[in-house]
Amino acid sequence: MNSRRDFLQKIGVSALMLQLGSVAFADTPNHFEQPYDGKVLRVAIMGLGGYGTRVAEAMKACTKAKLVGVISGTPSKIKEWQTKYNIPEKNCYNYENFDQVKNNKDIDAIYVITPNALHHSQVIRVAKAGKHAICEKPMALNAIEAQEMIDACKKANVKLLIGYRMHFEPHTLEVIRMRKAGEFGKIMFFQAQCGFKAGDPNQWRLNKALAGGGAMMDIGIYAINGARYMVGEEPIWVTAQETKTDSLKFKEGVDETIQFQLGFPSGAVASCLSSYNINYLDRFFMSGNNGFAEMQPSTGYGPIKGRTHKGELMQAITTHQTVQMDEMATIIFDDNKPIVPVNGEEGLKDLKIIEAIYLAAKIEKKVNLNI
Amino acid sequence: MNSRRDFLQKIGVSALMLQLGSVAFADTPNHFEQPYDGKVLRVAIMGLGGYGTRVAEAMKACTKAKLVGVISGTPSKIKEWQTKYNIPEKNCYNYENFDQVKNNKDIDAIYVITPNALHHSQVIRVAKAGKHAICEKPMALNAIEAQEMIDACKKANVKLLIGYRMHFEPHTLEVIRMRKAGEFGKIMFFQAQCGFKAGDPNQWRLNKALAGGGAMMDIGIYAINGARYMVGEEPIWVTAQETKTDSLKFKEGVDETIQFQLGFPSGAVASCLSSYNINYLDRFFMSGNNGFAEMQPSTGYGPIKGRTHKGELMQAITTHQTVQMDEMATIIFDDNKPIVPVNGEEGLKDLKIIEAIYLAAKIEKKVNLNI
Repeated sequence: MNSRRDFLQKIGVSALMLQLGSVAFADTPNHFEQPYDGKVLRVAIMGLGGYGTRVAEAMKACTKAKLVGVISGTPSKIKEWQTKYNIPEKNCYNYENFDQVKNNKDIDAIYVITPNALHHSQVIRVAKAGKHAICEKPMALNAIEAQEMIDACKKANVKLLIGYRMHFEPHTLEVIRMRKAGEFGKIMFFQAQCGFKAGDPNQWRLNKALAGGGAMMDIGIYAINGARYMVGEEPIWVTAQETKTDSLKFKEGVDETIQFQLGFPSGAVASCLSSYNINYLDRFFMSGNNGFAEMQPSTGYGPIKGRTHKGELMQAITTHQTVQMDEMATIIFDDNKPIVPVNGEEGLKDLKIIEAIYLAAKIEKKVNLNI
Repeated sequence: MNSRRDFLQKIGVSALMLQLGSVAFADTPNHFEQPYDGKVLRVAIMGLGGYGTRVAEAMKACTKAKLVGVISGTPSKIKEWQTKYNIPEKNCYNYENFDQVKNNKDIDAIYVITPNALHHSQVIRVAKAGKHAICEKPMALNAIEAQEMIDACKKANVKLLIGYRMHFEPHTLEVIRMRKAGEFGKIMFFQAQCGFKAGDPNQWRLNKALAGGGAMMDIGIYAINGARYMVGEEPIWVTAQETKTDSLKFKEGVDETIQFQLGFPSGAVASCLSSYNINYLDRFFMSGNNGFAEMQPSTGYGPIKGRTHKGELMQAITTHQTVQMDEMATIIFDDNKPIVPVNGEEGLKDLKIIEAIYLAAKIEKKVNLNI
């Protein structure tokens, strides 16, 4: 596992050398390593929007995964993708007929990259069609939906993976390694500032019915998930404060800005920010008795940068989605266990915390958690 | 006012050039500017501990203020200071007899640098002796005490100034200038991480009776005060979460770690951390619609560093206490109005917020403020 990264590290290819652009790692010529001769995960993407396009582009550089099919409600988009990615007619579906993928032996997995509200029914249909499901985060609108999706995939004996791209990001993994090795000492504090100014007011992400909420569902989830993988514990309480300055853009049920705090069993605490209306964020910070880690940017698509008490983090710069899809192939085929899980249970935990945050913000009281 | 700094900026003496040490600015030879020929504030320091010593050392470089007297309960310390700072016997007092300073024409002001619990009675005695009072922060244990101190100084027609050294720090003042000029646009978010691991468990700062609390009274107050001068508004609500991991070191009533959040009339919010048990902190961050400011370190004694969306802040590196005392001389003699007030009312506001934070942490509910 992680053979490309391990190999690059071994031969001393530093982040700096690879930093020819944000896709530098993905574009590294194959002669740097042994050609991959294992099974290739053949993926269909469901939902051909902005992020779907980003994943498709990143997958060009994958060695273990390949884009082979599309599912979309827009015939013109399907045509366009067919040309661009050389996708045969027989691997193209729409939202009415994609259950027929059951009979398609050339597709192994379907990556669901549609509005949040659709994930639940679509993943269950993917499972029923006997295909592995990869689902964008948040995996569902709430914990009940998430549990049903997990159950459906179990019943169909297919894998359910959530698109947590940071779980494969080298700087992130290095900080987790250092924490596990005790290099920070006892963790006392974690901070995440996640947010940006949302653009187009008509996008589905600002539509409660499609998104299930606002910033928290889309970007706040990085703070939640990050707190868990950085601190290495599950939170036992949450408090939250919601602020809305623009109720035209951020309508009822669509959160603009939420500050939230998490408490962990060890006594560590986290201070997190989720916002669709604050610029210049994207920072993780963790402080232990013996050291610290600061990542800034921490979850953006571009290069992640970080430093610790030992100096600058110099891990390889990767295209997150390329590494994610290659690694997901090994999870699906080889039952590889990633350092940070990306299974349905992982997605469910984040949704339980999101529900607790929304509740805590509403009742203005601490909410205890047991996840 | 600010003639030295203005002059240095005019002639292009950059922070880098001045950065020969943390006292570089203070040590800048006098021939850089016109010699000061105004009145010099003659100061006695009450309380000859660690911070008193720091102030005394910094005052060596003052042009408008001079250390001329001491008040202490320890005769050996008085002797030591007399030698070190050339202080005449007639300007030395103890805690029993310092009211007699009333008859000493050679002392203009007394800087009270004693444990927090003593500030109230000592400042009132200073006022009754007809001397201007400079008082370390927090100015008192609570708002009632603070109001009584303000009243006593008003009645005696003496000034009451609080030792807010950051109010004179050039990087800080530049960020405030930029905010007032609209360079950040509408302020949306402020963050302050203030804290360190407290050392000696027997120090007065960890004694509820002397300190009136824990980290919040000592270091958390920087976050409160910083939020106010950075955002430029007074908070209208506060929420707070207290965490204690070491109840032997941090006894009943001595707060170890408190996270608190502030809401402002404009809709801006602040996320703050106050801790005596978390290392690697000392950061301010402010985000507006059009720009940001990050200061790290933000309130430490050493050089303040910062950057904004426009680049690195290159203000002069100063010894905070030197500039503070020179500026306080102009406030006392010339009725100079500093950019950020340091009067008793300013200290009272911080104490009202501290009381609200302690209450919010205790009842685990939002507390509204009207200060």
